[in-house]
Amino acid sequence: MITRIDHLGIAVRSLEETIPYYEQVLGLKCEGREEVASQKVRTAFFAAGDVHIELLEPTAADSPIAKFLEKNPSGGIHHIAFATDDITAQLAQASDHGAKLIHEVPFEGAADKLVAFLHPKSTFGVLTEFCQPAHSH
Amino acid sequence: MITRIDHLGIAVRSLEETIPYYEQVLGLKCEGREEVASQKVRTAFFAAGDVHIELLEPTAADSPIAKFLEKNPSGGIHHIAFATDDITAQLAQASDHGAKLIHEVPFEGAADKLVAFLHPKSTFGVLTEFCQPAHSH
Repeated sequence: MITRIDHLGIAVRSLEETIPYYEQVLGLKCEGREEVASQKVRTAFFAAGDVHIELLEPTAADSPIAKFLEKNPSGGIHHIAFATDDITAQLAQASDHGAKLIHEVPFEGAADKLVAFLHPKSTFGVLTEFCQPAHSH
Repeated sequence: MITRIDHLGIAVRSLEETIPYYEQVLGLKCEGREEVASQKVRTAFFAAGDVHIELLEPTAADSPIAKFLEKNPSGGIHHIAFATDDITAQLAQASDHGAKLIHEVPFEGAADKLVAFLHPKSTFGVLTEFCQPAHSH
């Protein structure tokens, strides 16, 4: 079952240029920064209530975020991640109702979460992630 | 101060085609539907934790959502709305730090909320709404 939105992934050209907007204009606090080599991105995290905002800057031209920025040069919202209490059941439910899965089997993402993505062709244009926090698996 | 994310606005070509995806694939419950004549949209609402997902279908060719769908034919995330406890102070803070305001003065939106938008040219590509729930003004 989906319990809440875990985070929003937002593609940015530059963390350095964008972090001041989130801190000063929106008044959110940067809670941490991290490089995720497997995704070829650098990230910075903010909290808005119990939802995290994850800024994603590409570190290579073949990063998925670099491709997104080619189509959306200013940046923009890249994906929504829904927290689920059972990612295996969530993927089975999605598949049973006709969604295409990018990952049939969840893999370990940042912060020891299990994660998997649905294909945006079957989600009406919204790249959609499921994630199950480490403490519940 | 921003207290949480109030809702995500998602542009869709057709509520009828998209609602089953949110209900069946994601398992979220449709909490209501509404036509907002001033914005030339029909909406359907879902809850994911304390964040609402607002599907937006245009009702006219000059609806802002129709223009978004010209650029993004599959649909996609149209805006983020942050709940604030003081929308006037939030707009002043945004303006003081260089954000461009679409609305200098908040106006009454759906569900008796006060709302105002920042211009996406100053928000790194993310159309951003502030809203203050009715019970706090």
